[in-house]
Amino acid sequence: MLEFSLLKTEGQARRGRLRLNHGVVDTPVFMPVGTYGTVKGVMPQSLLDMGAEIILGNTFHLWLRPGLDVLRQFGGLHRFEGWQRPMLTDSGGFQVWSLGEMRKISEEGVRFASPVNGDKLFLTPEVSMQIQAVLNSDIVMQFDECTPYQTAGHLTTEPEARASMELSLRWARRSRDEFERLANPNALFGIVQGGMFEGLREESLASLVELELPGYAVGGVSVGEPKEEMLRIMAHTPHRLPAHKPRYLMGVGTPEDLVEGVACGVDMFDCVMPTRNARNGHLFTRFGDLRLRNARHKTDERPIDPSCSCPACAGFSRAYLHHLDRCGEMLGPMLASIHNLHYYVNLMREIRQALDEGGFEAWRARFHHDRARGADT
Amino acid sequence: MLEFSLLKTEGQARRGRLRLNHGVVDTPVFMPVGTYGTVKGVMPQSLLDMGAEIILGNTFHLWLRPGLDVLRQFGGLHRFEGWQRPMLTDSGGFQVWSLGEMRKISEEGVRFASPVNGDKLFLTPEVSMQIQAVLNSDIVMQFDECTPYQTAGHLTTEPEARASMELSLRWARRSRDEFERLANPNALFGIVQGGMFEGLREESLASLVELELPGYAVGGVSVGEPKEEMLRIMAHTPHRLPAHKPRYLMGVGTPEDLVEGVACGVDMFDCVMPTRNARNGHLFTRFGDLRLRNARHKTDERPIDPSCSCPACAGFSRAYLHHLDRCGEMLGPMLASIHNLHYYVNLMREIRQALDEGGFEAWRARFHHDRARGADT
Repeated sequence: MLEFSLLKTEGQARRGRLRLNHGVVDTPVFMPVGTYGTVKGVMPQSLLDMGAEIILGNTFHLWLRPGLDVLRQFGGLHRFEGWQRPMLTDSGGFQVWSLGEMRKISEEGVRFASPVNGDKLFLTPEVSMQIQAVLNSDIVMQFDECTPYQTAGHLTTEPEARASMELSLRWARRSRDEFERLANPNALFGIVQGGMFEGLREESLASLVELELPGYAVGGVSVGEPKEEMLRIMAHTPHRLPAHKPRYLMGVGTPEDLVEGVACGVDMFDCVMPTRNARNGHLFTRFGDLRLRNARHKTDERPIDPSCSCPACAGFSRAYLHHLDRCGEMLGPMLASIHNLHYYVNLMREIRQALDEGGFEAWRARFHHDRARGADT
Repeated sequence: MLEFSLLKTEGQARRGRLRLNHGVVDTPVFMPVGTYGTVKGVMPQSLLDMGAEIILGNTFHLWLRPGLDVLRQFGGLHRFEGWQRPMLTDSGGFQVWSLGEMRKISEEGVRFASPVNGDKLFLTPEVSMQIQAVLNSDIVMQFDECTPYQTAGHLTTEPEARASMELSLRWARRSRDEFERLANPNALFGIVQGGMFEGLREESLASLVELELPGYAVGGVSVGEPKEEMLRIMAHTPHRLPAHKPRYLMGVGTPEDLVEGVACGVDMFDCVMPTRNARNGHLFTRFGDLRLRNARHKTDERPIDPSCSCPACAGFSRAYLHHLDRCGEMLGPMLASIHNLHYYVNLMREIRQALDEGGFEAWRARFHHDRARGADT
């Protein structure tokens, strides 16, 4: 089940609402990533407290650990990880792609050795749909091949990107067929590929739209390309997707990228950046980014962001967080992850509010002004 | 400030109440250990939620990181780490003792190289009192030498233990003098030493009692001795301490040790076991201990302990915790630490309730019966 209502638009930016089997999601939305059935270092209750409405799970990882037997026994991922709201799972395509040399791609699917125990595994569109049916995620992603920015040391050529895009299209049809055969009650999204080539993106999009899927994603960005290339595709593809269906830009990005994405008509985002950067002492704030490891924070009694209402900012100083990081104390990444995710989730809340009030452009100008101020002034 | 009221006794077991500068502590009590100004992997709010009334800080570690300048700037450890209830700090004696070969003990104090940056440091009773005054902990421990169970490869002899105990006594007087000179408004505890020799313990105790300190600890246990030796000292020393003052058994121990300690007249306990064991997948439950890494938990839908009300047991299965541990996910030790600390804190709450109702002996029999049942049946 998926219902999408477009509540308001401003330029290409959209304010919408998604109804899924496990609840309602207001868009534009940021989805925290919970690879192994846990958003790293964050309790599900903390995600609820910060207002997260939907999180991600990774099909590839969950297939390997804990495996389908356990997930089937629990009736899916929701009960296993203690998250009762909507969930999206990727298809595993990006992860097997990331294995590089260790995998072999054919028309049928991708053969690879498990990085956990060396088992020989074969992931196909059908298997991906079967796994995601067991996971019972509200949004299922088609199995695709992520077209790399570089192929064998050179920039991926148009013929290479076309071959990859066309393979993803055939896998989209097989994904759709298997999804239907399984009578999965959730929603399947198609993924536009085509590398850095606008023409291929348009062909991919047109063919996917014919499949009449309930939502569409833009894949194959954040794969090592320069920022300008990413922005070029972000400006090109999302607004061409069907207006009455949700649009998801995969794996993006910085706060600035998200704001730009919304302006380009994107409704849904996911990225490991808030949690991964938190673990490295890189904090996002309204007034710019802050590197916790910098010695200047050693005696700084201010919270990370005085305008932030998260538990880390409500209770702790930069000096304390700097100390935790220096001592390798687990509470450091715990608090930093909560803060960064709270920042991302709250950023999208502010965007939704600005769209509700017809003030997105003014909000966007203030956002850039605030971010440029610097967190240390 | 320290006021101690003895509310009730049953045999040697005591139900009491401590009033300290930062609040009230009901005894018998277990104090979670927060070495570097954080109970590892646990938010201060979680400690409040589970009912922890007092936590520990380690003078030695905090002296090295973040250092006195930062702690002085924050007006002490409470504001720095976001914990407003009572706090006890050790003297650093045990930690410098743990450095082994790297330290040199003289009458004046202990000279050692900082394990963090190699700086040459000199910890004396006076310095320990000065650090603890900056920390502003509610309970300050005297600087002592922890008599080892073995000395240079042989069991510590009585003359060796006597020399060590007498040094600790002289350091107790110097600690008291410096504590008074600093006009520290908190409470100083003396530490009974004497190794495994009852006679020495009695001499140490008698001399410390002459100092009329507001509380006393039994130190030099949990230093590598066999369990029977520890139990022998636990049966010997605590009940000989002044009845109208709080008694603290340092660094002990398992749930069974705590119950035995209460029966021997101990009021206060601290131990790293609940948090350290949690990080290694060793969980304490009412029905015995549970090794999370055991493959049998892979599909177990039950919580760690069905009788436990902690957030880990309320929301998650053994199968999920097993999975988190296997994947090295931070949420694993986070949930396990909350559970183990909740178990320890709640154990003491049950003991206090049993003492209030005059039913400690019956409670104790049931405790042993339940713990022997096994967590897997």
